[in-house]
Amino acid sequence: HHQDFNLAAIYVSDAQYNRNIYFDTSPQAVRLYMRYNHWIPKVLLYFFILVDLSLALFEDPAIFPLPIWATMLVELLCLLVFTLRLGHYAQVIPRDKFWKDPKNICIIVILLLTLVDMIIYGALKATNCYGVRWSRVLRPLLLVNVTEGRQLRRAFRSIRNALPQIFYVFLLFMFSLLIFSLMALKLLGLKTIDGSPYFTNYLQILFDLYVLVTTANSPDVMMPAYNNSYVFAIFFILYILINTYIFMSVFLAVVYNNYKKYLKEEVRQLVRAKRHKMVQAFGVLQEQREGGGEPVVTHHNWNQLIRLVQPDIRNAHRELLWSVADDNNQGKVAFVQMADLLNIEVITLKSRPHPLHGLCPALYLSAPSRLLCRLVQHRAFVIVYDLIILVNAVFIGLDEENPLIANSEWAFLALYLLEILLKLYVFEPRAFFSRHSFWNWFDTIIVVSALLATIVNSAVMSTGNYTSRQILDIVFILRVLRLIRVVDSIKRFRTIINTLIRIGPAILTFGQLIIVVYYIFAMVGMELFKGKVKFYAEDSSDPEKAFCGNPLLNGSDFAQLNYCKNNFNNVVSSFVLLLELTVVNQWHDILLHLEKQVQYLQTKHFNIYREKKKKLNILITFKKYRFCQKRNSIFCKGTISL
Amino acid sequence: HHQDFNLAAIYVSDAQYNRNIYFDTSPQAVRLYMRYNHWIPKVLLYFFILVDLSLALFEDPAIFPLPIWATMLVELLCLLVFTLRLGHYAQVIPRDKFWKDPKNICIIVILLLTLVDMIIYGALKATNCYGVRWSRVLRPLLLVNVTEGRQLRRAFRSIRNALPQIFYVFLLFMFSLLIFSLMALKLLGLKTIDGSPYFTNYLQILFDLYVLVTTANSPDVMMPAYNNSYVFAIFFILYILINTYIFMSVFLAVVYNNYKKYLKEEVRQLVRAKRHKMVQAFGVLQEQREGGGEPVVTHHNWNQLIRLVQPDIRNAHRELLWSVADDNNQGKVAFVQMADLLNIEVITLKSRPHPLHGLCPALYLSAPSRLLCRLVQHRAFVIVYDLIILVNAVFIGLDEENPLIANSEWAFLALYLLEILLKLYVFEPRAFFSRHSFWNWFDTIIVVSALLATIVNSAVMSTGNYTSRQILDIVFILRVLRLIRVVDSIKRFRTIINTLIRIGPAILTFGQLIIVVYYIFAMVGMELFKGKVKFYAEDSSDPEKAFCGNPLLNGSDFAQLNYCKNNFNNVVSSFVLLLELTVVNQWHDILLHLEKQVQYLQTKHFNIYREKKKKLNILITFKKYRFCQKRNSIFCKGTISL
Repeated sequence: HHQDFNLAAIYVSDAQYNRNIYFDTSPQAVRLYMRYNHWIPKVLLYFFILVDLSLALFEDPAIFPLPIWATMLVELLCLLVFTLRLGHYAQVIPRDKFWKDPKNICIIVILLLTLVDMIIYGALKATNCYGVRWSRVLRPLLLVNVTEGRQLRRAFRSIRNALPQIFYVFLLFMFSLLIFSLMALKLLGLKTIDGSPYFTNYLQILFDLYVLVTTANSPDVMMPAYNNSYVFAIFFILYILINTYIFMSVFLAVVYNNYKKYLKEEVRQLVRAKRHKMVQAFGVLQEQREGGGEPVVTHHNWNQLIRLVQPDIRNAHRELLWSVADDNNQGKVAFVQMADLLNIEVITLKSRPHPLHGLCPALYLSAPSRLLCRLVQHRAFVIVYDLIILVNAVFIGLDEENPLIANSEWAFLALYLLEILLKLYVFEPRAFFSRHSFWNWFDTIIVVSALLATIVNSAVMSTGNYTSRQILDIVFILRVLRLIRVVDSIKRFRTIINTLIRIGPAILTFGQLIIVVYYIFAMVGMELFKGKVKFYAEDSSDPEKAFCGNPLLNGSDFAQLNYCKNNFNNVVSSFVLLLELTVVNQWHDILLHLEKQVQYLQTKHFNIYREKKKKLNILITFKKYRFCQKRNSIFCKGTISL
Repeated sequence: HHQDFNLAAIYVSDAQYNRNIYFDTSPQAVRLYMRYNHWIPKVLLYFFILVDLSLALFEDPAIFPLPIWATMLVELLCLLVFTLRLGHYAQVIPRDKFWKDPKNICIIVILLLTLVDMIIYGALKATNCYGVRWSRVLRPLLLVNVTEGRQLRRAFRSIRNALPQIFYVFLLFMFSLLIFSLMALKLLGLKTIDGSPYFTNYLQILFDLYVLVTTANSPDVMMPAYNNSYVFAIFFILYILINTYIFMSVFLAVVYNNYKKYLKEEVRQLVRAKRHKMVQAFGVLQEQREGGGEPVVTHHNWNQLIRLVQPDIRNAHRELLWSVADDNNQGKVAFVQMADLLNIEVITLKSRPHPLHGLCPALYLSAPSRLLCRLVQHRAFVIVYDLIILVNAVFIGLDEENPLIANSEWAFLALYLLEILLKLYVFEPRAFFSRHSFWNWFDTIIVVSALLATIVNSAVMSTGNYTSRQILDIVFILRVLRLIRVVDSIKRFRTIINTLIRIGPAILTFGQLIIVVYYIFAMVGMELFKGKVKFYAEDSSDPEKAFCGNPLLNGSDFAQLNYCKNNFNNVVSSFVLLLELTVVNQWHDILLHLEKQVQYLQTKHFNIYREKKKKLNILITFKKYRFCQKRNSIFCKGTISL
């Protein structure tokens, strides 16, 4: 019987977190699977992936060079951890399913190739030959292929499916580019003022016009022709209208629509799979009712199941869930909704009295104390502190050397501390520091850290009369961060910021996607271009500094604009360079939309799903009053996590 | 009775074209109103607006200078036309409605102000004083305020309504910009390598960071700090992530959603107004049925009404409309749909035999002739001509001086002509040149013009052995345009191009909007900056050429990059400059979305409306077969114009 509950709990938990693993249902495999899903091995796995990825910092070309044996040893440890994790997974699911899953094959291939590469590289280095660590390109693929990389796989799959449609628009765009280049070659094959060639090479024209689509070389590319005649401006205006505006719009629309289409299909499958798992869980626990009719899950079994699925759930919350599901007659329909119900965030607030009220009621309830409470809760209190922040902003901008300005910092710190203390006096501390009071936490952490940093700074200054730049910078950043608090006082700003915080998880998935792509490009770029462009410190007097250590760059714009640090000499430089390339090309237009779509997935803000949530929300609003009436001490607030 | 039909026809026509004019219903006013809606005065009005706007080309600072009296005379003529048109309008609608309408007041004020300005300017010029033609700024407002500028007014209204929401995001963005600038000032107040100041002036930092949002100065603005230390790159990466990516996304989303919201409301009102007008028309023509029940409009009256509304409608088309409306019992519901039915494009194709078939059946039906027809209709024919186009493209790219290449043009022209003649032999000429065969028209016009231009070119060359650059360029452009034909052979490309053609009208409205905004900025810019930056021709040896005739620009980037022609010295320069500014700032992201929305409006692709159209489409598909069976000679094809 206990095994049945374990199995049902696994099904429910899989449905709740959208896991899609066809595990073995034998009691032993179920126990192993529960261990597999525990948070500790997951965090460890991601930690070792991070270690594996960050090895690029220490490997040649390195920022912090380490001997080869050290990085090799760490990498071997990582490989061992990945192998163990995969071995655990192989124990959980049936043998044939394991070998049919491409992501397992992928991980095994990556592990084997990395091992082979390490051996070859080690041997080459031992004999002082030139070796290339080509398997480093495969490292980010681990992020995609581990069991937990579902979201990432879904995003990649949707991109892959959308490619064919995008390809046709791209072809048409290329066609337009070729035609315009041909026209440019024949119509504008002029000479610039200083006699240098302009638009005489077809491939150069192609590249220039492609760059014009990204608007990066506008209006420079057009100036010689425009200086020659007004008529030639028509060519460029037409080009910009057709290619930059119309084609890029079509491109965007096609990418967006196709990606959305495939993602919708993915989410639809997700919802179906979730339903299926809940039906399986119901099948395990169902009992025939005495009077016949549909099978049900009893209240007792339901309680036991929920306790297994979410051990930290409060009794009140559990009872609320039951009373919501109860209406739908305890049958399959109500049970299937449970996975969604568990995902709904319910904030349980106990309206406790202030601890001072308990300790010293005479003082706390006295007239001055009450007046203080009213003052702090008044709107004017917020406005006064907003004004203080504004004055503070002006002081931050002024010269720090002035002793008046330097000392004013203590006054501002005192004022901010006073505010927090006053609020703690008025509001119940546990409510003030509840999990959802983002701004209270933000305030307190910033003010306390600023206080500590300022004290450390003064201490250091009073002893040696010398302050390190780092401490000063930290103090300064903390001071500026305090200003952000002003955003919280204006309702519209708060709404915008809350929306941004809400799409945080989506951006996280998107960030992983970016890291995978950037890492691969950085690895390839480093092997191909390392050392080709060198950066010399500002105080260097090396004559090669003028052309970044590469005679080919002598007199080029690249060297003149001090771009020497934009190179592939180490992993940090590579990432910064790739980011710069991303910024200059306007791919963020498309990424923005993808981002929104990833958010769609993450928050399951999908039509079917939304409808269901709305219904649940209404149900909860109706129920919670009835429920809260029963347990007077508890003030329940049901929020729908979007 | 005749007057009733006129009134009903006016109501239907207003509903069909979404006109919203509360005209007087007296027979005389109705007749005047019909004349007011005629296409000739409308075209004349737009012609004179165009003349009025293009006066900027001839007025100081002019491209083609004309004496003041000439431009003044033309402008007076324009003002007279506008006054006449407004007078006509005043006769059509009730007096009190006329004076309550802000757009009429607007036009009157514009006319009066222009007149005053002209008198003042004329007087100043007569006494050789300096005068400013400030009323030119008002000219584009006529485009917005004439009765036909409905779409434009709707777009502007939606933008105005969306502004408050956008303002809050803008404020938050500004706040973030200020905070980041403050941080930059304190953290990055460094010196560059060559000792020039970097990030030391708060306002300069503000401007630099604002420009970074548009990505125009990336990565230049970051390089000095990045060269100093890797750590400073974090600041810029954070800035780009937060401001360029996240904030611009939010900005875009807010603009898009708000504009859409208000535009939806506008379209909803439009649909309501349309319904109301159709009900009024029904009220005029309705008759009680003999057996009692709901009032109806008889078939006879319906026919007469349609003939009044669309005199050029074919009998077959009219009968089709009646048979579609007929099902819904001739009552009000069916009648109200008529405005939408009339907007649906119905292509009536008569399957006529080829004229040669009538003239000489023996020859046309002979075996070789039939084989030719089969060959031309074969897929291989299209492929062969696509290959010819590709070969032609290669030849165009090659050196023209080579006599072989020059003569090959005649061969290609002959091949293209042959293709058109063959197609005319196979397909019925009137079907081939039907109104909807865009590509056939395109082909024929391009090929025939290329033939003519090439002949003219050869004639000129053979006589004087000298060809003007213009003729050569025209011949060349026609040659290149021929290549576009290849797009038509690939189905996916055709779909994309057809979609683009379909959103053409939306882009037209959008173009007007752009012209209004640009014109106002150009006029203000010209008065403020004319002559400040001068452009010298390439062969000029004026020493001022090095700094665009303005000592302030001596040694500046502006002069070094040959940007001297980017000035406000005449209206064409001003427009090009404004376009360049639009391109560099990424406002097209937002405009793209607005464009899509204007399209929504233009095509009434609105939910309610779309549903209705779908229904009609289904109705028509069901009906047309029945209908076409009755009239065997006619092959009808119903298309829904999106």
